Amino acid sequence: MSEIRRDPLTGRSVIVAPERGRALPSFSPVGALDGDMCPFCEGQEGIAGRELLAWRPAGSAPDGPGWRLRVVANREPALRVESHLGQPTDTLFQAFGGLGAHEVVIESPHHRASLATMTGEETGRVLWAWRERIRDLRRDVRLKTFVVVKNVGSLAGATLDHPHSQLLALPLVPQHVEDELAGASAYYERTSRCAFCDILDREIALDMRVIASDELSVALAPYAARVPIETWIMPRQHLAAGERLGDLMRRLHKVLVLPPYTLLLHTAPVGVDVSASYHWHLEIVPRLTPVSGLAWDGGIHINTVPPEDAAEALREAR
Amino acid sequence: MSEIRRDPLTGRSVIVAPERGRALPSFSPVGALDGDMCPFCEGQEGIAGRELLAWRPAGSAPDGPGWRLRVVANREPALRVESHLGQPTDTLFQAFGGLGAHEVVIESPHHRASLATMTGEETGRVLWAWRERIRDLRRDVRLKTFVVVKNVGSLAGATLDHPHSQLLALPLVPQHVEDELAGASAYYERTSRCAFCDILDREIALDMRVIASDELSVALAPYAARVPIETWIMPRQHLAAGERLGDLMRRLHKVLVLPPYTLLLHTAPVGVDVSASYHWHLEIVPRLTPVSGLAWDGGIHINTVPPEDAAEALREAR
Repeated sequence: MSEIRRDPLTGRSVIVAPERGRALPSFSPVGALDGDMCPFCEGQEGIAGRELLAWRPAGSAPDGPGWRLRVVANREPALRVESHLGQPTDTLFQAFGGLGAHEVVIESPHHRASLATMTGEETGRVLWAWRERIRDLRRDVRLKTFVVVKNVGSLAGATLDHPHSQLLALPLVPQHVEDELAGASAYYERTSRCAFCDILDREIALDMRVIASDELSVALAPYAARVPIETWIMPRQHLAAGERLGDLMRRLHKVLVLPPYTLLLHTAPVGVDVSASYHWHLEIVPRLTPVSGLAWDGGIHINTVPPEDAAEALREAR
Repeated sequence: MSEIRRDPLTGRSVIVAPERGRALPSFSPVGALDGDMCPFCEGQEGIAGRELLAWRPAGSAPDGPGWRLRVVANREPALRVESHLGQPTDTLFQAFGGLGAHEVVIESPHHRASLATMTGEETGRVLWAWRERIRDLRRDVRLKTFVVVKNVGSLAGATLDHPHSQLLALPLVPQHVEDELAGASAYYERTSRCAFCDILDREIALDMRVIASDELSVALAPYAARVPIETWIMPRQHLAAGERLGDLMRRLHKVLVLPPYTLLLHTAPVGVDVSASYHWHLEIVPRLTPVSGLAWDGGIHINTVPPEDAAEALREAR
């Protein structure tokens, strides 16, 4: 069983989830599984597990072939809805039960599919699955924060090649999520305006870091980009990001050959009213080199490519 | 010229330091330079640069061979003392000049040396160099925060094998440093006690996560360890950590074969009085797998090895 430990100095939360019966880690390079033994391919539904949500033709049977997208529970979940949060008894060393959810969105039945080659309908379906699962999990009032992460390539920590993303539901609001909300709230209190809206307005007026935009969404290189070619997608309307995601990934694949990357969905936790000051958005972080020790765990990033140069290259790539 | 940009949402600072004349990054695995062309080996002093500090026999000439340790300026510094901090003119997109220092401590003349094989005197000398350089840089009142980082292995972001560490002096206090200070201060205000002292007392009494200790310093696996085999060295007295560092690194090398790791010196910034609530310490983070997207930049860590198991393995390794 896992537990959530709070660091007595910084207050940061860490999930300690021992892998059953596994010895101390040995140092060996991470290898991706071969396509033949991929548990996420069509026909392997029994191995991947029971579907919590699926997109499949009317009349096709659950947990069988024929699907276009499936969501299943992670086979080695870091958190479980069956756990209890509990109350820490120690004031210095605080531990909570490993309550939460850990799901996998299998984004396509095809092992070699990618967001860069999917149709707009297909990328839209991935966002639909994230939204539907978050909507369902929000009904459990014990769950506070929902994080979606997609890792592509072994440098991004991926251990499977098959296109998939992970959804983690947490029983608390982690420090880094609180920091972003606090920043947006502080801006709102100071200016009575939404920081996200102001950033969008200014970026469009400046036209130096915008990659592509229409009336529905904007893709841009953020002003304080942490790594080369970091990009964000900010929706003007919520349903719009699916098409934009496909377009941006195609541009990324033109500028970088088969880039390893991490995609993160940033969305507001429940229980705090930030509707006036916070917008959900996507952050796409190419993982071209290992994280330097200086930047490890929220440290100092040194970015060698100004976001203005990144935006120019991505604007021209189509 | 580099600049320090502040993210308008989170307030985090990023150093944007374009590499002169270099095109957009292509995705290629990071390779370490061969020993033959190593700029840090003895005899290459002209390439490594003028020494800011050195440990060499009495009478030997500066910037020539015969040294045991040298500190030089980074050849591609992210920050420079010649820069000006300036005042940002834009309220949303704030940029400061790339003021600061970026130095390299060449820890040994020998290409294949490591903290695990150095003598206590040699590891003590490395800590002496960090302390001396920070002491000197602190005289520049524009510099606020001093970070020492040592990356070993390409998974930790190292591009050179020769044993070295980097010292970065910043003109501001980054968010993650402020968070740690704030946590320690909050604990002090609540309890009138130092959190570091309380952690040490409790860890020694519990005897579950202590790896080794004497009257001078303690090596332990922290309660909320973020990655397998994370260890901290907490000095009871300031001069004591050198011997402990060598001992701990030898233990790490027994438990993990040639582990890639990041070592970080945490020390209080200038201009804030935290002498009652804060202790400097070393954090040693094995980098056995790439940082998962979930944990990227201060996100959520999932640690599969409880620190109690890590401490047990390290206690037995000698």
